[in-house]
Amino acid sequence: MTIKLHCFGESGNAYKAALALQLSGLDWEPVKVDFFGGETRTPDFRATINAMGEAPVMIDGDVRLTQSGVIQDYISEKSGRFGGRSAEERREVLRWVLWDNHKLSSMAGMTRFLMNFLPEDKRPQEVITFNLGRLQAAYGVLNDHLEGRDWIVGDGLTNADLSCCGYLYYPEPFGFDRSAFPHIDAWLTRLSQQPGWKAPYDLMPGSPADRA
Amino acid sequence: MTIKLHCFGESGNAYKAALALQLSGLDWEPVKVDFFGGETRTPDFRATINAMGEAPVMIDGDVRLTQSGVIQDYISEKSGRFGGRSAEERREVLRWVLWDNHKLSSMAGMTRFLMNFLPEDKRPQEVITFNLGRLQAAYGVLNDHLEGRDWIVGDGLTNADLSCCGYLYYPEPFGFDRSAFPHIDAWLTRLSQQPGWKAPYDLMPGSPADRA
Repeated sequence: MTIKLHCFGESGNAYKAALALQLSGLDWEPVKVDFFGGETRTPDFRATINAMGEAPVMIDGDVRLTQSGVIQDYISEKSGRFGGRSAEERREVLRWVLWDNHKLSSMAGMTRFLMNFLPEDKRPQEVITFNLGRLQAAYGVLNDHLEGRDWIVGDGLTNADLSCCGYLYYPEPFGFDRSAFPHIDAWLTRLSQQPGWKAPYDLMPGSPADRA
Repeated sequence: MTIKLHCFGESGNAYKAALALQLSGLDWEPVKVDFFGGETRTPDFRATINAMGEAPVMIDGDVRLTQSGVIQDYISEKSGRFGGRSAEERREVLRWVLWDNHKLSSMAGMTRFLMNFLPEDKRPQEVITFNLGRLQAAYGVLNDHLEGRDWIVGDGLTNADLSCCGYLYYPEPFGFDRSAFPHIDAWLTRLSQQPGWKAPYDLMPGSPADRA
């Protein structure tokens, strides 16, 4: 049975789930969510797909899951990959997934939205400036951690990598300059060389070009 | 061996770990972190306690863990409590812990800090107003979910509850009015009636009163 992922190209959180599916070797296909057309805010989407009004949503037979970290956890159980090789690694993966949700992807996703997807006259500049400062600190933590390491946890690709990279391949500006963070830069290149890897707008349906 | 939790009263993230320890029945004690004196930003703290510069940090013999969600996960493994009773419940717990890190506690913690612990003339009003709007949406999601339920996942207390409540017992203003969210209000009361429950400033050392 083919796993279906309700997602859209602009969503870094959806990308985390899509990339985990793609690299896991499981059979999957994306289903486009029309986020910018308001689909996630409709009563129908909330009633039948996700009460939190968020994408991505993964459907595998009777199993319906939301939150990219939960979907990644399910993919790890099903494929035996990316979950860490010991109890210690598993907890270290969870630590970075939580940190990413708290400090990195949450802030990057919101800031990228405010800077690129809101009309220019509606962009809250003080909020954007504040967030950019928080993001620089988060990039610094990740960059320092990656010094001398190929992967965030242990010696292989895990959900920690697949979570933290969620927004970092997008071309729109949100205060992330790869050249300023050389260890992040090398790690993103390494990850992009995994067999099957694709950039967000190539892996999922929908992109800003559709609305241009 | 007594588990040590490096924490401070003002931190809702530390409270999540402290409350899980307290209600688990495990033997534990708090160790005060002088966050407002700058302790988490010192090279010594980053080198010996936590490179992310964050509290809480749990130390149990040779095991040193950070991130409240990871500490809760460890407490569940050790005590057999709060982790959910099936694979499905376990994933649903993780979903709410991640949602809390992304949408609720991260925003509540930051907003409470900006509104209460920064000097009045340094509070970024546009950021605060923006965050308060995001928080109202998050409170609404949680309140709707708790309608007709005693606990967030299944029919017992789990880490989902112990995560989402992290900031909601604090007295300082951050846009949370219990009376406006009756299902959250009833759930917080229910949780506070668990044997051993204490409010944040009673459970952990340090409070705004120390600096008054």
